[in-house]
Amino acid sequence: MKRDEVNLNLNLIDRMPTGIPGLDNMMEGGLPKPSIILLAGDAGAGKTTFCTQFLCKGADLGERGLYLLTFGGPPDLLFKYASSYEFVKSAYFGKEICYIVLEEVVEEACRSKEILEVLEREIDALQPARIVIENLSVLGDILKDDYGRFLFKLSHLIKAKKVVALIAEDSETDAPYPAPIAQVADGIILLQNDEINFTRRRSIEVLKMCGTSHHSGKCAVDISVKGLTVYPGL
Amino acid sequence: MKRDEVNLNLNLIDRMPTGIPGLDNMMEGGLPKPSIILLAGDAGAGKTTFCTQFLCKGADLGERGLYLLTFGGPPDLLFKYASSYEFVKSAYFGKEICYIVLEEVVEEACRSKEILEVLEREIDALQPARIVIENLSVLGDILKDDYGRFLFKLSHLIKAKKVVALIAEDSETDAPYPAPIAQVADGIILLQNDEINFTRRRSIEVLKMCGTSHHSGKCAVDISVKGLTVYPGL
Amino acid sequence: MKRDEVNLNLNLIDRMPTGIPGLDNMMEGGLPKPSIILLAGDAGAGKTTFCTQFLCKGADLGERGLYLLTFGGPPDLLFKYASSYEFVKSAYFGKEICYIVLEEVVEEACRSKEILEVLEREIDALQPARIVIENLSVLGDILKDDYGRFLFKLSHLIKAKKVVALIAEDSETDAPYPAPIAQVADGIILLQNDEINFTRRRSIEVLKMCGTSHHSGKCAVDISVKGLTVYPGL
Amino acid sequence: MKRDEVNLNLNLIDRMPTGIPGLDNMMEGGLPKPSIILLAGDAGAGKTTFCTQFLCKGADLGERGLYLLTFGGPPDLLFKYASSYEFVKSAYFGKEICYIVLEEVVEEACRSKEILEVLEREIDALQPARIVIENLSVLGDILKDDYGRFLFKLSHLIKAKKVVALIAEDSETDAPYPAPIAQVADGIILLQNDEINFTRRRSIEVLKMCGTSHHSGKCAVDISVKGLTVYPGL
Amino acid sequence: MKRDEVNLNLNLIDRMPTGIPGLDNMMEGGLPKPSIILLAGDAGAGKTTFCTQFLCKGADLGERGLYLLTFGGPPDLLFKYASSYEFVKSAYFGKEICYIVLEEVVEEACRSKEILEVLEREIDALQPARIVIENLSVLGDILKDDYGRFLFKLSHLIKAKKVVALIAEDSETDAPYPAPIAQVADGIILLQNDEINFTRRRSIEVLKMCGTSHHSGKCAVDISVKGLTVYPGL
Amino acid sequence: MKRDEVNLNLNLIDRMPTGIPGLDNMMEGGLPKPSIILLAGDAGAGKTTFCTQFLCKGADLGERGLYLLTFGGPPDLLFKYASSYEFVKSAYFGKEICYIVLEEVVEEACRSKEILEVLEREIDALQPARIVIENLSVLGDILKDDYGRFLFKLSHLIKAKKVVALIAEDSETDAPYPAPIAQVADGIILLQNDEINFTRRRSIEVLKMCGTSHHSGKCAVDISVKGLTVYPGL
Repeated sequence: MKRDEVNLNLNLIDRMPTGIPGLDNMMEGGLPKPSIILLAGDAGAGKTTFCTQFLCKGADLGERGLYLLTFGGPPDLLFKYASSYEFVKSAYFGKEICYIVLEEVVEEACRSKEILEVLEREIDALQPARIVIENLSVLGDILKDDYGRFLFKLSHLIKAKKVVALIAEDSETDAPYPAPIAQVADGIILLQNDEINFTRRRSIEVLKMCGTSHHSGKCAVDISVKGLTVYPGL
Repeated sequence: MKRDEVNLNLNLIDRMPTGIPGLDNMMEGGLPKPSIILLAGDAGAGKTTFCTQFLCKGADLGERGLYLLTFGGPPDLLFKYASSYEFVKSAYFGKEICYIVLEEVVEEACRSKEILEVLEREIDALQPARIVIENLSVLGDILKDDYGRFLFKLSHLIKAKKVVALIAEDSETDAPYPAPIAQVADGIILLQNDEINFTRRRSIEVLKMCGTSHHSGKCAVDISVKGLTVYPGL
Repeated sequence: MKRDEVNLNLNLIDRMPTGIPGLDNMMEGGLPKPSIILLAGDAGAGKTTFCTQFLCKGADLGERGLYLLTFGGPPDLLFKYASSYEFVKSAYFGKEICYIVLEEVVEEACRSKEILEVLEREIDALQPARIVIENLSVLGDILKDDYGRFLFKLSHLIKAKKVVALIAEDSETDAPYPAPIAQVADGIILLQNDEINFTRRRSIEVLKMCGTSHHSGKCAVDISVKGLTVYPGL
Repeated sequence: MKRDEVNLNLNLIDRMPTGIPGLDNMMEGGLPKPSIILLAGDAGAGKTTFCTQFLCKGADLGERGLYLLTFGGPPDLLFKYASSYEFVKSAYFGKEICYIVLEEVVEEACRSKEILEVLEREIDALQPARIVIENLSVLGDILKDDYGRFLFKLSHLIKAKKVVALIAEDSETDAPYPAPIAQVADGIILLQNDEINFTRRRSIEVLKMCGTSHHSGKCAVDISVKGLTVYPGL
Repeated sequence: MKRDEVNLNLNLIDRMPTGIPGLDNMMEGGLPKPSIILLAGDAGAGKTTFCTQFLCKGADLGERGLYLLTFGGPPDLLFKYASSYEFVKSAYFGKEICYIVLEEVVEEACRSKEILEVLEREIDALQPARIVIENLSVLGDILKDDYGRFLFKLSHLIKAKKVVALIAEDSETDAPYPAPIAQVADGIILLQNDEINFTRRRSIEVLKMCGTSHHSGKCAVDISVKGLTVYPGL
Repeated sequence: MKRDEVNLNLNLIDRMPTGIPGLDNMMEGGLPKPSIILLAGDAGAGKTTFCTQFLCKGADLGERGLYLLTFGGPPDLLFKYASSYEFVKSAYFGKEICYIVLEEVVEEACRSKEILEVLEREIDALQPARIVIENLSVLGDILKDDYGRFLFKLSHLIKAKKVVALIAEDSETDAPYPAPIAQVADGIILLQNDEINFTRRRSIEVLKMCGTSHHSGKCAVDISVKGLTVYPGL
């Protein structure tokens, strides 16, 4: 288990570097470990790129990563899309980094318990340090009243397995992030791509990060073939 | 299968030219292939014109195109409307480009499986490279809880058939595009016709395009008998 | 069938003059024929006056017109109200122009099929070139899930009978026009009477018109005993 | 039946003076007769005062008036409140002007037919020229799906009895007037008491008046012991 | 029964002084009697203080007062909170002023009739001139469809007992006061504590007061150990 | 029972210091005792830090504290997060301050009575002077119609046990605090982290505090390893 030592005299919380240049020093060296981090933003704001950088950084450090999609695929196409970024090493995929599409599981299972069992089995099999979950909120429609309990149990599973889980979700019409997931999240990061005077301006903001003195307010973000890069001001 | 070679050293994703002057060089030469592209906008913003240009461009290149309407018609009237544009060659219709009205299928079928089977049969019969689907969200009211699953399965079908599907949808009262379709879309393009100081200004914006470095922010659009033309600024 | 020849070299679509001074040359000589045109606006914006002008223009040209109300009446009172306009010739009413109140039909029929049969019978009996339908959206509450199908079938009926149908609807609280009717409309015209600095300003806008190069943006409208008159600017 | 002769050469519609100084000459001499006029406004905007002036003006002219409340009372308290205005002559009440509280009828009847029969009986008994109905929309909760049909039938009753009915309703949170009543109304008048720079400013506006060239935009209103007085500008 | 004689030549309506310095001369000497007055405002706007001043003023004048809470307590704690104000005389409580918590009654009774019987019994026992009811709208959730009828009957009870009832309610998210209670209220008073340029400004406004020429627009309010004091301007 | 004597001549209400530098002298020395205080704010506004300071201040004064979470944990991770603050003494945890996760109780119990019994048992066992409850509103989904009654009973329990309960809740999309809890709260404190010109500004505001002359308007707040510090202005 890698330990980020920068803030040792401040607290005992392990830190995991995100792989996003400029982001880790906004929050005492990285994401607290273990933790559930909600990454929210509009379509096109850069969530998938963020998640891919996060897993590739882990692979660079020898950590295994699990990319869970509630639906989608096929994995080879996802990899093809991802491979347009410079930081993506094709050797990682299928080895350090595994894409798993949960669609079939979700279709068959209709109770939170079964989905959690599949998740636990996959985690136990790969032993990842980093997990990405895309569009978890799709399960809200399927699990209905059982969704709240599912999120609580998922939170316990992530903590018990001592991993950092990044949950990537679309912003909603009238709220920047889905409230049910925010309730179980230890940290919330917003990616935005707001229209200002008819142009778009990308920004990132650490809205909440448990046990962490984090930067307050938005920072500028650039997306290129190098992925996301965070700049100090706006 | 035509390959757009411009960005070969950047990535391996095939590109399909849209036929809209000025648009393709906003996104590395065209739409990724295969992909589902959501084209959203208010009534009168130019969605049907965009779709017709997209299919006619394909026909110019020798690609077959399928224009699927969830309701509407009759096809000869649709062609009559379309024929007011200069880029429309009447010889294409019924040959390279086929209009198919799904209304009867939709009325009889009430499960996603049956609709998907009809779609697959039509795709297998015509072997199109380009597909347009208008007002797909009408199926949300009919399929209800089955709609989410339908969209996931449709996504798999499009990917398996290696086509580019353009899904044209009306903007909603409080959201620029329908969220369920956005969740399965590889790209999102917005057409707008906003009122600014009591005049209308047309614009286009590539909000998201998987595996693609795309232009950020709105560009001006003109609609004439030549169809849509995109201009670099606003 | 009268043919408006102005745009013959542009396209082959028949045009029907609206009878509103200044409006037809905003859209290549008139409304496309056949078509369903949605005329939306707030209470008091001039929808009924527009519809009456439309039918009287037809009567001037020897075309028969059908004024369908989903409820209301009695017809003699409606005529009395209409007769305050100079363009209304009392001789037309009951002959070229017929008011039909659908209230009883709607009360008895509770399926779209029966209402469509009555509509078809009335159209076949009068052989109108122009139809006005007021407050069609009232049927949404009555037909419920069957309403969408009703609108699609109505659209086919209008096209098959080769008439122009003007559907006059109130704007809704949070949307300028009712979305379900917009989905089957070939054109959308908005009448507004907005409050600006505590005075009201009337405007008209052609938001969409299939197969037509139409004027973009709002134009000023005046309502007097001559009915609506459209002015080029605002 | 009194005839307002001012606009005889314009149209044949009878006019009924409102009794509000300054209002009648905003709309060709008064309210069209017969008609249903929706009077909408926030609490405290002056609706009850308007209605009382309307009935007292009728009594001055020898016309009988019916003041229908869907709930409330007791009538002697209502009269006591009303008697603070100079234009109220106590002799009218119980004779030319009758208060009728419908609460008991509404509680017992739960179908529109029964309520309409009571209304018709009361109208036939008193033979009023003017009717006020307060808070008619309360019946929406009671009649539910039958409410729309009730309003259509009420509209026919008012027209058949050749009276002018003034329906006073509270504005709603997100709309200036209740849409279902607006659909059957021949005219709509808004009373407002808006907050502007922390003071209240009273205004009146004729939003719609069938068969009538009416003043457009808001006019200032004063409420004193003389009741409402309308001033030309704002 | 005390009579406020100031406006005798204007009307015959009894007036009851509120005990709020500066408020009575905004509305012809006080609240009309009998009447239901809705006092609405956000949490912390001063509603409870207003109500306590109202009852203590009555006690000063020898009138008994009833403070009804739909839930809460215990009464000795409520008195302890109230006793921080200078105008509160501890001798009044339990004698001239009685706190009654309706929570148990409401829990057991589930129909409006039973709650009204308890209210009538309490009124008959204490013979109050002034009644305060806090959070009456809680009954809306309990009585559901019966709530409207309950409010009408409560209105009749208050009028029959010839008391002034002050109903204190929280403002709602999107409306300054609860509409169902406003429908039966003879007067509406708003207390606000709006944020303006990051500071809070307290204000009071008489929005409606039946049979009363009242001040229009907001006035400034101060809350101190003397309770609310109203100042003429803002 | 500690008594804060500062305002003795003003009233008899006990005061409990919050432990937040600068906050107590905004409200006569502290929170009234006993009381329920609603602490509301967006994710990341500092609610958990506030609550931890509140309990540690109590521990400094020899008072026991109970930290109730409706879900979450595990407690050792919560303590690890908390330990990044200077004011947290590790010796307190498990002794003066106990974390209790109610998740299992809530899952098994589905009626308010059972949850209240567990709460009472825990309070009787630890005899705390201070209680924190996080995310109480989660119970709204579980208890449904029983939630209102639960809150009333909880209010009685807190008063009977003579403790101060701090209820920490997320702000909602369209309201700064959850209305049902506000209805039973004796005080409301808002923590905000608003975006102003693309930076975040932290503020605190005492919106309501029963029996207390409190500061009105927002004050600036800083969050550091010393926890929250309140500054007089903004």
